[in-house]
Amino acid sequence: MPYVNIKVTQEGGPNGTGPSVEEKAQLVAGVSDLLETVLGKDPATTFVVIDEVPLDNWGIRGKRVSVIRAEQS
Amino acid sequence: MPYVNIKVTQEGGPNGTGPSVEEKAQLVAGVSDLLETVLGKDPATTFVVIDEVPLDNWGIRGKRVSVIRAEQS
Amino acid sequence: MPYVNIKVTQEGGPNGTGPSVEEKAQLVAGVSDLLETVLGKDPATTFVVIDEVPLDNWGIRGKRVSVIRAEQS
Amino acid sequence: MPYVNIKVTQEGGPNGTGPSVEEKAQLVAGVSDLLETVLGKDPATTFVVIDEVPLDNWGIRGKRVSVIRAEQS
Amino acid sequence: MPYVNIKVTQEGGPNGTGPSVEEKAQLVAGVSDLLETVLGKDPATTFVVIDEVPLDNWGIRGKRVSVIRAEQS
Amino acid sequence: MPYVNIKVTQEGGPNGTGPSVEEKAQLVAGVSDLLETVLGKDPATTFVVIDEVPLDNWGIRGKRVSVIRAEQS
Repeated sequence: MPYVNIKVTQEGGPNGTGPSVEEKAQLVAGVSDLLETVLGKDPATTFVVIDEVPLDNWGIRGKRVSVIRAEQS
Repeated sequence: MPYVNIKVTQEGGPNGTGPSVEEKAQLVAGVSDLLETVLGKDPATTFVVIDEVPLDNWGIRGKRVSVIRAEQS
Repeated sequence: MPYVNIKVTQEGGPNGTGPSVEEKAQLVAGVSDLLETVLGKDPATTFVVIDEVPLDNWGIRGKRVSVIRAEQS
Repeated sequence: MPYVNIKVTQEGGPNGTGPSVEEKAQLVAGVSDLLETVLGKDPATTFVVIDEVPLDNWGIRGKRVSVIRAEQS
Repeated sequence: MPYVNIKVTQEGGPNGTGPSVEEKAQLVAGVSDLLETVLGKDPATTFVVIDEVPLDNWGIRGKRVSVIRAEQS
Repeated sequence: MPYVNIKVTQEGGPNGTGPSVEEKAQLVAGVSDLLETVLGKDPATTFVVIDEVPLDNWGIRGKRVSVIRAEQS
């Protein structure tokens, strides 16, 4: 009966704005498979929730990711 | 001083896109009442945060809910 | 298919250390009922997860709850 | 390797709709500094995620914040 | 720079009290691999946090899992 | 009315098992101050919840932190 929450930044994917619908499908299927394989959890009661976070709202190294990406480009 | 987070899919409600403002009011009041009744918690310091999740971002049974709803209809 | 997370401090209840097993049962049943009544959600896929947080690990008003309780007593 | 999640209501800030980009930068920097100062955590692996919550989706005192703000004004 | 939180009940595993250390290692590796494969995320900044929840603190179908397991056995 | 959740590994601190009570007090005070300074939030309704996560339950680079620490020592 696992609950899995995946948080990613809104970048990458086909439009550069985050995972595509197909990529989300792969994440959901992949996490459900992993929990069934490793722990024997029934996918019928495995929840996966994906949160997409704007680059201004995610920080690392004391900076917003939007700033880090601007420095990298 | 409880904190309650409610995550629901963006479906149902008056427009089929998630809970109405009135339904959110009922969730907030209902959860605050429950915590006061069961645990004696003062509603003054009970927080309720409702997250509405797109159907493509919620998975169960290894599939996105958007796919499950399409199969059901 | 809701997911509800309830966080409470480890106080109150029969031993002063947090909700009893019976109180947890009431929280689980009450939240499931509320989501069924207000949003028509099937309890079969409503998850409720209760986290009990030590008084030293919960802050409000810039102080730990353990300190606030000591000041109140 | 801390993970910090900050949830605030979508109010205040330059447009009354939540924190500005500059204020988010200050939150990210401030939290990273705090964890480095107090616990010696390397900012390189400190994540800060800011969630902005609509006023209809946040409850306190058994009411939505949108209602509380309307009563206060 | 993903953050993944996996919540499972404290059951199963070698002692019936939740995932073993080896199973946790497989979850961490599997989730990191999945995010690298599907989204191209660098494992260096993928966080995985596993929470193990007591059976009395997890509810589904309006009941605690501890009660459901007792009914099943 | 902010809610802040801080997750750290159970290491460091006076006993090597995580933040001391005094360090937790500094985290709570520091976060409350930051939100008051940057966003004008009243500390009376700022919640801070600290979660301490075992080294076997936190992964980065596809490995548990317990393994990374063993490799570093």
